[in-house]
Amino acid sequence: MPNSTVDEQRINTIRFLAVDAVQKANSGHPGMPLGAATTAYTLWARHLRYNPANSHWFNRDRFVLSAGHASALLYALLHLAGYDLTIDDLKSFRQLGSKTPGHPEYHHTAGVEVTTGPLGQGVGNAVGMAMAEAHLASVYNRGSEELLDHYTYVMAGDGDMMEGLSGEASSLAGHLGLGKLILFYDDNKVTLAGPTDVSFNEDVGARYAAFGWHVQHVEAGEDVDAVDAAIVAAKGVKDKPSIIVVRTTIGYGSPRAGTFSAHGEPLGVENVAKTKAALNWPAEPAFLVPDEVAAFWRERAATGAKLEADWNAQYTKWKSANGTLAAQFERARDGILPSEIPWPTFTAENGSVATREAGGTVMNAIASALPELVGGSADLDPSTKTYLKGCGDFEPGTYDGRNMHYGVREHAMAAATNGIALHGGLLPFCATFFNFVDYMKPAMRLGALNKIRSIYVLTHDSVWLGEDGPTHQPIEQLATLRATPNFRVVRPADSLETLAAWKLAVQPETGPWALVLSRQKLPYLGDRTAAVDKGAYIIHEPSGAVELILIATGSEVSLAIESAKKLAERGTHARVVSMPCMELFDAQPAEYRETILPAAIRARVSLEAASTFGWHKYVGDRGIAFGLDHFGTSAPAPAIAKEYGFTPEHVADVASGLLASV
Amino acid sequence: MPNSTVDEQRINTIRFLAVDAVQKANSGHPGMPLGAATTAYTLWARHLRYNPANSHWFNRDRFVLSAGHASALLYALLHLAGYDLTIDDLKSFRQLGSKTPGHPEYHHTAGVEVTTGPLGQGVGNAVGMAMAEAHLASVYNRGSEELLDHYTYVMAGDGDMMEGLSGEASSLAGHLGLGKLILFYDDNKVTLAGPTDVSFNEDVGARYAAFGWHVQHVEAGEDVDAVDAAIVAAKGVKDKPSIIVVRTTIGYGSPRAGTFSAHGEPLGVENVAKTKAALNWPAEPAFLVPDEVAAFWRERAATGAKLEADWNAQYTKWKSANGTLAAQFERARDGILPSEIPWPTFTAENGSVATREAGGTVMNAIASALPELVGGSADLDPSTKTYLKGCGDFEPGTYDGRNMHYGVREHAMAAATNGIALHGGLLPFCATFFNFVDYMKPAMRLGALNKIRSIYVLTHDSVWLGEDGPTHQPIEQLATLRATPNFRVVRPADSLETLAAWKLAVQPETGPWALVLSRQKLPYLGDRTAAVDKGAYIIHEPSGAVELILIATGSEVSLAIESAKKLAERGTHARVVSMPCMELFDAQPAEYRETILPAAIRARVSLEAASTFGWHKYVGDRGIAFGLDHFGTSAPAPAIAKEYGFTPEHVADVASGLLASV
Repeated sequence: MPNSTVDEQRINTIRFLAVDAVQKANSGHPGMPLGAATTAYTLWARHLRYNPANSHWFNRDRFVLSAGHASALLYALLHLAGYDLTIDDLKSFRQLGSKTPGHPEYHHTAGVEVTTGPLGQGVGNAVGMAMAEAHLASVYNRGSEELLDHYTYVMAGDGDMMEGLSGEASSLAGHLGLGKLILFYDDNKVTLAGPTDVSFNEDVGARYAAFGWHVQHVEAGEDVDAVDAAIVAAKGVKDKPSIIVVRTTIGYGSPRAGTFSAHGEPLGVENVAKTKAALNWPAEPAFLVPDEVAAFWRERAATGAKLEADWNAQYTKWKSANGTLAAQFERARDGILPSEIPWPTFTAENGSVATREAGGTVMNAIASALPELVGGSADLDPSTKTYLKGCGDFEPGTYDGRNMHYGVREHAMAAATNGIALHGGLLPFCATFFNFVDYMKPAMRLGALNKIRSIYVLTHDSVWLGEDGPTHQPIEQLATLRATPNFRVVRPADSLETLAAWKLAVQPETGPWALVLSRQKLPYLGDRTAAVDKGAYIIHEPSGAVELILIATGSEVSLAIESAKKLAERGTHARVVSMPCMELFDAQPAEYRETILPAAIRARVSLEAASTFGWHKYVGDRGIAFGLDHFGTSAPAPAIAKEYGFTPEHVADVASGLLASV
Repeated sequence: MPNSTVDEQRINTIRFLAVDAVQKANSGHPGMPLGAATTAYTLWARHLRYNPANSHWFNRDRFVLSAGHASALLYALLHLAGYDLTIDDLKSFRQLGSKTPGHPEYHHTAGVEVTTGPLGQGVGNAVGMAMAEAHLASVYNRGSEELLDHYTYVMAGDGDMMEGLSGEASSLAGHLGLGKLILFYDDNKVTLAGPTDVSFNEDVGARYAAFGWHVQHVEAGEDVDAVDAAIVAAKGVKDKPSIIVVRTTIGYGSPRAGTFSAHGEPLGVENVAKTKAALNWPAEPAFLVPDEVAAFWRERAATGAKLEADWNAQYTKWKSANGTLAAQFERARDGILPSEIPWPTFTAENGSVATREAGGTVMNAIASALPELVGGSADLDPSTKTYLKGCGDFEPGTYDGRNMHYGVREHAMAAATNGIALHGGLLPFCATFFNFVDYMKPAMRLGALNKIRSIYVLTHDSVWLGEDGPTHQPIEQLATLRATPNFRVVRPADSLETLAAWKLAVQPETGPWALVLSRQKLPYLGDRTAAVDKGAYIIHEPSGAVELILIATGSEVSLAIESAKKLAERGTHARVVSMPCMELFDAQPAEYRETILPAAIRARVSLEAASTFGWHKYVGDRGIAFGLDHFGTSAPAPAIAKEYGFTPEHVADVASGLLASV
C-alpha cells in the first residue's frame, strides 16, 4: 500500500535534511539516510517513547544507530523531534566544534545515546542496554508499580551484520531472551565497496533464528504500514529479541540508487537536484522543513513530555511505596557512592595473595553495599575470580542476578558493558585474561571515547602465567592501553595496591579503568599508604643517599625490592618506586614527580615483564628499560624468570652495570 | 555400533598419551583430548593425507587444531603418526624449551600447521588455507594434471564457535563455497567456567546452514564409523564447506566427565587411575603405546610416504609439461623474488600523492611480476587503493582471481591472511583503515608470533582523515603495533618512502609488515635515497651546525621540513630526521644511530599525529614529544591541524621554546 502523502512528506523531510547536510559539508554518507528514512520515521513517529526536552529521562526508549556513518539521518531526526539541535547545527555538519560530527558522539549531542561508527558496536551496546533494562526492571519494578519499562531499538546495516561482534552479541541476546530488544537490519545489499553479493550472501534471518531471535522480513522497506506492523509484532514478542530485516534501496530516489557510489560520498549538486525532483521535493530551499511537518513533530514532543510527566507521577508513587529501594536507585543512577563501603583489609597475615584473588576479595566485600555493581567474565570467572558470591546469575526470564555469563565472547562483553554503563543505574565490570584485551579493544576504545564508567578486570597479566605459553602471555597490551586516551591502567603490586585500585575505580566521574592483575601469588609488601592515586610512590628506600632508582609495576615490584636488597649487600643504595599507574603519575604536580624521580638521579632501571615501549619517559637517557621485547614461552613461571633474567641477582647485575657506566 | 576393540585400543592410546602428558606436567587440558580422541583418530587414521617424514609436503592435507588448548591431543597424534616428536617430548609437555609447549606453536614442532590457542583463530586460518588451496589449484592445475588437491580440516570447540571471528570466517567460507574445508565442532556442551547452556544455547548447525555450509550432526561422538561416514559425506560435497557437529563428552571416561573441572586442569593421579580403569587401560606404564598400535601408525606413515611419492611423480610430469608455471610455482613456494620486478618510479613530476595512492601504484606495478601477491580489503578497496587491476576477483567456483573480497570482516580477513601465508605458495596482503587494526589485532599478533609473511596495508592513518572524526582517527594504533614483537611498522612520508617500504615488505624471510599510509596527499620530498631500510635518515639538513633535531614520520615529515624552514628564518639550524620505522632504526649499529641522532644534540622534537607514547626514547630527557595524547575530532583536516598546532609556525614556536630552555 502506498504511503499517505502526509507520511511521504515527513519522510522526505528527513531524507533531504540529511542529504542537504552531507552536500553542504561535501562529506558524509547520503545513501543510508535516503534508504532507511522510512524505517526511522515509522519508529520515531509511531513508537519511540522519548521526550526531547529531557534527553536523560530514565525510562525513555533507547535508540542506537549502529550504522553510525548514517549520522545525518540521526541528526535530522533529532532536529525534527525537538532535541537541542538547530538547522544551523545541521548546516555545520562535520565542521570543527559542531554538534554534528561525522559520526554520532555521546556526551556531545543531546539525544545521541552512544558514540557509534566502528561497525557492529551499536548492536553490542544495545544488547547491554537491554540487559541493563531487564536487570533494573527485575530489581526495581514492584507488581503494577513499574519503574522501568522501555525498549531498546538498534538500527544496523550490512556492515554491522558482517562484523563478528554483532554475531557474538546477538547470540548472547538470543540466549538471554531479551524481548525488549528490537534490531532493524537495513538490508540494502550494498556496502562501501560494492554490492553485498560480492562477499555476503548468507541468510541473515535464518542466522538470527538460529540465535533464538524472533525474525521478520519487510520486503517493502518504503512502506510505513509494513514497517509499523513489524514493529507492533516485535513488541508483542516478550521472550525473544526481534530482528526486522527491512529490504531497502541505498540512495533511494537518487540517480545513484542501489549502487555503492551512494554509500559514502555526497551526491553532488546535480544529483541532489535530480533526487529532489524524483521524490517531488522542492529544489529550494535546502534544509526545508514544511510547517505541517514541524507541527507534527511538535505534537510528538508534547506527547513525549506527557509520557515523562506520567512516568514522573508514577515514579513519585513508586518512591513513596519503596523508600529504601528508591534511595538505592537514585544513588546508583546519579553515580554516587554509598556513604559507607565495607572495604576489606589486607595485612601481612594474609600472606602472599595473587592480585586476582585480592581483587575477588574486594569485589565480594563491597558487593552488598554496591548493588549497582554487575558484570561477569568471558567464560573465565573461576580464573579471574570475579564471581560475586550470593548475588545470583543473570538468567533468561528472571534477570535479577548480578553475575553475567558472557560466554567466550570478549568483544560482545566489552560492547555490552559499554551499553550497561551508558544505560545508567549500574556500575558494570567485565573480566578476561589480559592478553584477550586484543579481542575487545575496539569496544574498550569506544568506552574510552565515550568516557564511561566501566571497569575491566584483566588477570593473568604477564609471562608469569607460565605454561599456557606465548599465545596467552601479554607483552604489548600494557603499552596498548596506556597509549589509549582516557584509560586508566593500574597494575597493582600486591593486595593493598589492588584494594587501592578498586577504591579509585568505583569513584564517580572517572573514565574506564583497567585493573591488570596477576595469576600468581605476590608477597604482601608491608603496611603502608599504597598511593595508587598518585600513580607512583616510594615503596623501598635505602639506608644511605639514593644512587639508583628501580621503577617497577605489579609483580615486578617485589622483585625490585629483592634486587635493591641484593644491591644493598653490594653497598649500592637503591630506591624502589612502585608505579601502578603511569597516567595518574603523569597527572601529578611536577614537585611530586620530582620527589619520586629526582632529575639528579639518572641511574634508573624500570622493571616490567612486558614490552619496554614507553618506559624511556621514566628511565630517561641514561636509564635501562628492562622488560620483554619479545614473545614469551611455555614453561613454569620460575623457569621463565630464570630464562629472562627476572631474578634479584640478574637485576642487581644490570643495575650495577648501569651505575658503573653513568 | 560399538567400535572394534582395535579402534578402541588405538583411541585409548591417544587419550592416555594426552592425559599422561597433562598429568606429568601437572598443567594442561585433559578434557577435550579424552572427548575428541575418537574424531581425531578417525580423521588421522582413515582420511588425513600426510607424510610424517616431510611435514612440508606441499599437497598434504592441512589439519588445524583451533582449540589449541587441546594441544596434548595433537602432540599424541603427531607422536603416533611418526612426526619428529618422541615420548620424551611428550614427557616434557609445557616445560621450558620443549617441543610440546602449552599451545601448539608453528615453526617449533613439526606437523603443527599454525600456532593456535586464542579461540576462533584456527577457524579463520583454515578458511585462509582453503582459499589458498582453491586459488593455487585454479592457477596451477591443468586438466588431469593436478598440482594441488588437498583438504583443510579444522577442529574447533565451543569457545571457537562462540567467538565472532569464527562467525565472520565461516560466513566468508560459505560465501566462497570452499568445498574442501571441513570443520569438526567438538560439541561437548562444557566450557572453562561451566556448561554451555549458561551462555550458549543457539543452534550452531542452523547458523552454519544459514552461512551456506553443508551441515551434519554425529550424535554418537564415540562411534568411529559414524564419524567416518560424516567425513566421507563431507568430502563428497564439493561446492560448500562442511561442518560436522560431533556430540562428545568432555573428560570422557573420567570421574569428571561432562563437567567443567575436566576442561583445564589435570585430572589428578587418582582420577587418571580411575579413568584408565574405566576405559580398560593398563594403569602402568604411563605413556603406553602398545606394539600393535605403533605398528598401525607405522603402516599409515608408509602409506603417507607413498602418497607423497606418487605426488612427486605426478609433480615431475606436471613440471615437464608446464615449465613456466612450474618455475613460477617453485619460486613463489620457496619465497624467492623474481630476478626483475618492475618497480615504479616517483619523481617531483608526480606532484603530491597520498601514500595510499602511491601504495596502490606500487602494488599494481609489481602485480604481474609477482603472481603470488594476492589479497584484498575489508570492503574498502576503493579507499585503501589496494585493488589489483586486471587480476580478477577471487570468486566462488573459479577462484583464479587475486582480489579477495573480505566484506566488513577485518578479523576474519587477518586470520585468513595468516592462513594463506601459512599455506605457502602465496604472498598475501590485506587492507583496511588503520584505526581498524583494533578489530584484527588478535590475528595480527598471531601473524607476528608465527613470524609469517603477511603485509597489512593500513590507510587513513591519522586525524588528518578529517571529517569521519574520532571513531575513525587512530591515536594509539602506532604504539600498539610498535610494541608488538616481530612487527615492522612503516609510516612513509611520501611516495618514494612508500616505494621503499614495499621493496622491504616483499623480501623473503621477513615477518609481518604494517604499511601505514595517508588518506591525504603528501608532497614529494625530493629525489633521494629514502633509507627506509635503516629505519631513519636525515631528510633535511640546515645550512649551519645543527642545533635542534625534528624527528617525524609519515605526513608529519613535510610539516617538520616546513617548520625547519621557519626556524631557519629565525636563525635556528634544525635538522629533520624522517623515521619511517622505529624497529629498523633500533636494529642499526650504534654508529649509524649516532650519525642521525647525535647524543650531543639534546634539543629534539618528535612530530607525529598520534599518541606520544614511546617517543621519549628518541627525543630524550630534554626533548619534546609533540603529538596527540587525546582523541581527535570531526572536521576538515586543515581545521584540525590548526586546532592541534600542527602548523609550521606552531611547531617552530615549540622548538624555539625548547632551545631556549635546554
